[in-house]
Amino acid sequence: MNYFKTDRFVLNGESARELYAFARDIPVFDFHNHLSPELLYHNRNFRDMAEFWLSGDHYIWRAMRLAGVEERCITGDANGEEKFLAWAKTLEGLCGCQLYAWTQQQLAVLFDEEEPLCLANAREIYARCNEKLQGEDFRPRALLGRFGVTALCTTDEPSDTLEWHEKLQQEETDILCLPAFRPDKLLAASKDTWIGAIRKLEQSEGMSIATLDDLKAALAHSMDRFAALGCRTADHGYEGLKYIDPTGAEEDFTAALAAGIATQQQADRISSALLQWLGERYAERDWVMQLHSGALRNGSTRRYRALGADCGGDSVDIAPGVRSVSGLLDILDQADKLPRTILYCLDDGEYPSLATLCATFAAGGIRNKVQLGAAWWFNDHERGMRKHLAYLMENALLAGFVGMLTDSRSIGTFVRHDYFRRILCDGIGAYVDRGEFPMELAKKIVSDVCYGNAVHYFGGEKLLQHCGK
Amino acid sequence: MNYFKTDRFVLNGESARELYAFARDIPVFDFHNHLSPELLYHNRNFRDMAEFWLSGDHYIWRAMRLAGVEERCITGDANGEEKFLAWAKTLEGLCGCQLYAWTQQQLAVLFDEEEPLCLANAREIYARCNEKLQGEDFRPRALLGRFGVTALCTTDEPSDTLEWHEKLQQEETDILCLPAFRPDKLLAASKDTWIGAIRKLEQSEGMSIATLDDLKAALAHSMDRFAALGCRTADHGYEGLKYIDPTGAEEDFTAALAAGIATQQQADRISSALLQWLGERYAERDWVMQLHSGALRNGSTRRYRALGADCGGDSVDIAPGVRSVSGLLDILDQADKLPRTILYCLDDGEYPSLATLCATFAAGGIRNKVQLGAAWWFNDHERGMRKHLAYLMENALLAGFVGMLTDSRSIGTFVRHDYFRRILCDGIGAYVDRGEFPMELAKKIVSDVCYGNAVHYFGGEKLLQHCGK
Amino acid sequence: MNYFKTDRFVLNGESARELYAFARDIPVFDFHNHLSPELLYHNRNFRDMAEFWLSGDHYIWRAMRLAGVEERCITGDANGEEKFLAWAKTLEGLCGCQLYAWTQQQLAVLFDEEEPLCLANAREIYARCNEKLQGEDFRPRALLGRFGVTALCTTDEPSDTLEWHEKLQQEETDILCLPAFRPDKLLAASKDTWIGAIRKLEQSEGMSIATLDDLKAALAHSMDRFAALGCRTADHGYEGLKYIDPTGAEEDFTAALAAGIATQQQADRISSALLQWLGERYAERDWVMQLHSGALRNGSTRRYRALGADCGGDSVDIAPGVRSVSGLLDILDQADKLPRTILYCLDDGEYPSLATLCATFAAGGIRNKVQLGAAWWFNDHERGMRKHLAYLMENALLAGFVGMLTDSRSIGTFVRHDYFRRILCDGIGAYVDRGEFPMELAKKIVSDVCYGNAVHYFGGEKLLQHCGK
Repeated sequence: MNYFKTDRFVLNGESARELYAFARDIPVFDFHNHLSPELLYHNRNFRDMAEFWLSGDHYIWRAMRLAGVEERCITGDANGEEKFLAWAKTLEGLCGCQLYAWTQQQLAVLFDEEEPLCLANAREIYARCNEKLQGEDFRPRALLGRFGVTALCTTDEPSDTLEWHEKLQQEETDILCLPAFRPDKLLAASKDTWIGAIRKLEQSEGMSIATLDDLKAALAHSMDRFAALGCRTADHGYEGLKYIDPTGAEEDFTAALAAGIATQQQADRISSALLQWLGERYAERDWVMQLHSGALRNGSTRRYRALGADCGGDSVDIAPGVRSVSGLLDILDQADKLPRTILYCLDDGEYPSLATLCATFAAGGIRNKVQLGAAWWFNDHERGMRKHLAYLMENALLAGFVGMLTDSRSIGTFVRHDYFRRILCDGIGAYVDRGEFPMELAKKIVSDVCYGNAVHYFGGEKLLQHCGK
Repeated sequence: MNYFKTDRFVLNGESARELYAFARDIPVFDFHNHLSPELLYHNRNFRDMAEFWLSGDHYIWRAMRLAGVEERCITGDANGEEKFLAWAKTLEGLCGCQLYAWTQQQLAVLFDEEEPLCLANAREIYARCNEKLQGEDFRPRALLGRFGVTALCTTDEPSDTLEWHEKLQQEETDILCLPAFRPDKLLAASKDTWIGAIRKLEQSEGMSIATLDDLKAALAHSMDRFAALGCRTADHGYEGLKYIDPTGAEEDFTAALAAGIATQQQADRISSALLQWLGERYAERDWVMQLHSGALRNGSTRRYRALGADCGGDSVDIAPGVRSVSGLLDILDQADKLPRTILYCLDDGEYPSLATLCATFAAGGIRNKVQLGAAWWFNDHERGMRKHLAYLMENALLAGFVGMLTDSRSIGTFVRHDYFRRILCDGIGAYVDRGEFPMELAKKIVSDVCYGNAVHYFGGEKLLQHCGK
Repeated sequence: MNYFKTDRFVLNGESARELYAFARDIPVFDFHNHLSPELLYHNRNFRDMAEFWLSGDHYIWRAMRLAGVEERCITGDANGEEKFLAWAKTLEGLCGCQLYAWTQQQLAVLFDEEEPLCLANAREIYARCNEKLQGEDFRPRALLGRFGVTALCTTDEPSDTLEWHEKLQQEETDILCLPAFRPDKLLAASKDTWIGAIRKLEQSEGMSIATLDDLKAALAHSMDRFAALGCRTADHGYEGLKYIDPTGAEEDFTAALAAGIATQQQADRISSALLQWLGERYAERDWVMQLHSGALRNGSTRRYRALGADCGGDSVDIAPGVRSVSGLLDILDQADKLPRTILYCLDDGEYPSLATLCATFAAGGIRNKVQLGAAWWFNDHERGMRKHLAYLMENALLAGFVGMLTDSRSIGTFVRHDYFRRILCDGIGAYVDRGEFPMELAKKIVSDVCYGNAVHYFGGEKLLQHCGK
């Protein structure tokens, strides 16, 4: 059997394999990804493996660029086969890289390929997989079903009409697809994308925005629309979170609006005011607040101009955020309006500070009210996940962890859940094998981390019942 | 036999087990902890396991809070059994956590329990252990004896009367209990606890403090009292050490005294002046200077108001201190008044900088004059200690390391020495097993790190001889 | 056989050993070291093991100082045997330290010693090795040949006459020895070594320097001289790279020249202007730019005054440079003048940011145009190299890595290439053993990383052909 679907892949001990046998069929609640609800609504077959794998996955683009592949064969106008071959060639240098494993895993699990992809068999595999891709079981929703997904939360701007979410929810599907609220552009007043985002929100909510209070009102209106479609979470991405005393934000906002853009100082006060206000609203609505921090975005001006944002020009920043995060959570906590919060960092050097901060804002009656989110982006490889789990085990209660999410822009990469579960089972299994932890309790933790905690933390029980899942 | 006292626990190879067999009975010099000399003087039995384990250990409180236990069952008025059961339930989620290991170790080693504690057997174990706790061999001093402790240094404020230390030294005991000088509050002039600490010192020393020189005189007077009781070390804890040019500190001090509190700028100059002055005095008195840095303290204002300081509301900060530490040591070194110094950091991202800094201030005739202290607080788990030992091996001379301390507020957690020794023996044993280091030299290192180095570094030979130990 | 030359040392699996058998005889292109071309030109035998090992290696000095050895037996006037014995004694505490392995490796590989060095056999080994040292096969060039070196790049100041390089290239040697351009002192205008470096450059180039443009002209003139001798790379070492807007640097330069030294602000603008200008020139000349960052230099004023720079008084700084590096590369990239660039950091906490930044500046047609340099200085031990390789594997294309360099000041430490290759083969072999990567592709990666990538990246093909290598 293809190694990447055996119970040897990642699994080193007896207990690990026993735990994985138990974990592999537990369903998936993917609470953060970048799938398009429109794609799920139309539910069309992919044209070919190039579209399936290479059309939107900036992880793969990065690797191909490092390997010296010309942009033409990455995001350019080369044909599907050319791109696929370029990817196969790139793979041959990716020893020890998570992309190698994910690629082979997908071929093994979804396409029943026996041999790992390499340049020599690439044409053959391309042709064979393209054919399979046209089957019913390779449509987007079918694929999610094969991955065991019962529910997912996408990523949507406040001004989004949520039209595709609405239509999708009227369909009969096995998968609960929920919007998630991501107001980043509206909070980044020193960027040239800000004023456009404000204008778009005015239109989507049919409200004019002249003051900070107007913006809050429009955001509240938008949140109502999100809530009506079952939204359970808001998500914030920022380069480095900076929470400062927001006094004066109202005046700053008016000035920025007049100028079309804010100075950095104004922008910091505006975003601090909005983060605080939004945090309180999330608490009232019982939404989970997710904070993603630490990217250095669009480092190459040249590539940014050529390809735009989120296309592989980002990297890890070092901008320790713990004082700001702590300050924000403390303000919300003092007002008794601290929502359940997940903290993600891109620089693994922030794990010690964020993992230990969680306990500071713990609360009775709920496990890990504030928690460290999964190993994110450049960290979601085997070593990175093991390191992340170690920090959870030692100082942040692994048992209460809401587990893996895909952050996917590419539906095939939902294999990441299987990959994560193998690592989780292997990590826990090692303790069981040595006699340092009982199997029975280990299974409970695995079950909770794989699914139960996420459902519970995101309040998914009712929603899943409601649609019979 | 209970796994946690076998020679399999943590020990993976033949050499590791051979080294551990040799190490396990070496005595303990615990040069930094938070035990109360009063508790040791009275030497009374603990009421029950709740008092023994849960009444003062903020490590455990953190874990229980993460698990969603209500504060009532943590620091509140629930009864002992309720608290113990809440802890047993919490343990069931602590796979891979050092608290799980320490708890089972204590039950195995001190109480001869056969089964690991879990919720199902918690009542039974609670009752059985409560009974044992009433025996002579469970009194504080007997427990320390069972842990092999020959000497320990507590943590005391300069204004402390040292009454209990004095009384304890007049007793016939097998354990040398020494005070250690911790002037933190007097150095933190921007905190609201500062002025009270100054007033307390005036009283304890019978001297009035109107100038920085007065403060120095009072500190010197206090140090004489500490020295008379055998004090060998001073300990400084600060969030992030900031050493700046202290010029003007005298004026800052007078101004701060008038205002009852200092500005941050004044406070930095005052503490820099005092650190420098104290460092010189420690060198003259041949005291070891310990510098603990990197905590973000009292992050939740709400919890701080409810429970006070040092109650589990602290976390790891990121505030790299190497430039300040280097600056301070350099000033002392230039004046030929650099004391032996131990550097501790909470963020393991500081290991590279602090481990390599030590050699810069090395001196002939003494190993590791400046050294990296043991893996501290959130780092004293298996992975953390292994990581710490790796940094020592690679760049900071493991052979000269003064080894483990407990930092304990709870006497049972002296099992940490056994835990550390297993990790140490396993780490060194791996090299011996592979043929990369000779067993004979490995034993010498183990012996030195477990005890010999600490005794020598803290000048304990004479003191121990003096009292026949 | 001496363990340190068996195929067990560092190699844990079948595939690792197979890969190493293949890797061990691949030649070496050592593209960064501190060997003296004069030493290679004269090619004289070393007087004794003390000169061979201890006369210039500040790694060893650090370790001896930590062990409490008196400076007399380190850099002082003790005789060779005394120093050698002090080193043997120090070794006895260096369990797990790379210096222990390198020392035993050299004795095994170069001197055919059977037993590891320890204090007991030190005199005997000292005498025996001293004798061997007088043989033809222990002259500097012969030693390099025994290490498989075909080419090396030294480290030279712009004002260097390159006289020894010139003479050496006129000799018949098997080794291509190239100069490398290191203009550090000329870029550090706030240091007291700056003005002297400017004056020296005026003399070496026969040009007077009164403006920033004059300095650029003199640097260009020097670069021509370096190019004429086959220079392929420039190297920059700085404590923390600070790239800021260089506007005004011309005026700053004139002012600094008048004063003999610059303020920090002036110096930052001057070095930013020069870095940018030099980067463009390197791109035009097709030179590789190497950026070494993150040392805290000369921490002990006392030792610096006694022994000078680069003598073991340096340590790891924490001064995250990613924003500056990214800014500099972006400016060069926008002008289409970004040279191939290698980024080295001393604090391993910078790996995530620098490893991921590389892809941002990737370019078609070349693998790893910008890349993360080898584990450097305090990081070139087994754990450090494994960690470094992990970051490459996960996010920075190991297959395109130019591999190990020695950074050596001591010719015996070229064993580091063998040490690195063992670690590389073991790291990759683990994937092959598990069935996660094919052996055939693994061998290709090993071959490229050991030699092929460096030759190609530094444009060494032509030069090596030219001299028949």
